[in-house]
Amino acid sequence: MPNSSDPIFHCPIGGTLEVIAGRWKPEIIWNLQEGPMRFNELKRRIGTVSQKMLTQQLRELIRDGLVIRTQFAEIPPRVEYEQTDLAKSLTPVFEALINWSDAHGGAVAQNRANYDRE
Amino acid sequence: MPNSSDPIFHCPIGGTLEVIAGRWKPEIIWNLQEGPMRFNELKRRIGTVSQKMLTQQLRELIRDGLVIRTQFAEIPPRVEYEQTDLAKSLTPVFEALINWSDAHGGAVAQNRANYDRE
Repeated sequence: MPNSSDPIFHCPIGGTLEVIAGRWKPEIIWNLQEGPMRFNELKRRIGTVSQKMLTQQLRELIRDGLVIRTQFAEIPPRVEYEQTDLAKSLTPVFEALINWSDAHGGAVAQNRANYDRE
Repeated sequence: MPNSSDPIFHCPIGGTLEVIAGRWKPEIIWNLQEGPMRFNELKRRIGTVSQKMLTQQLRELIRDGLVIRTQFAEIPPRVEYEQTDLAKSLTPVFEALINWSDAHGGAVAQNRANYDRE
């Protein structure tokens, strides 16, 4: 059985980043915290994401086991996406990311502005 | 003055990810924890990174204020890279990333294997 010493997780920091660092993944997971959601509802909430990109990012999240796709036998067919317990276990990670952004995001923006001016 | 409500930080999770999620950035910051280091020493430790990529990632880390580049007036000139206090403040973020990888990396690898088999 694979474990955290497998090649894809050769760097433990990079392993988690590989799961969450897709361009739209944090926003997808964030929005799915509110409950199961249809594709168009998710797309509307995220706003600027293209249909192709959202499809691709959802597929990767499904592959990693963070999102479940359920197709209901209705006419017209209804498909919903929802987060798994594995996605919920990311809460402390997201909290750490948000805390750092809140505390140091301003400094980073200032550093970038200074660097670009020189 | 820029702050965390600026566009680059419109998503607080994504803001921090944008700073740390470069392909080699976690490993660069991780290695620089041990103290100031010359380019070739850093490259040797990371192993598979190309000179071009390491240069580029270091430049971004310098721009964001996570790494300082110091050139000493010696012959031949000596250049050292070291982490800043801002980089050190990422410790709780890295701990959260490592903890999640340790706890759930095996599950992710298993999910991927299952998905790819279907």
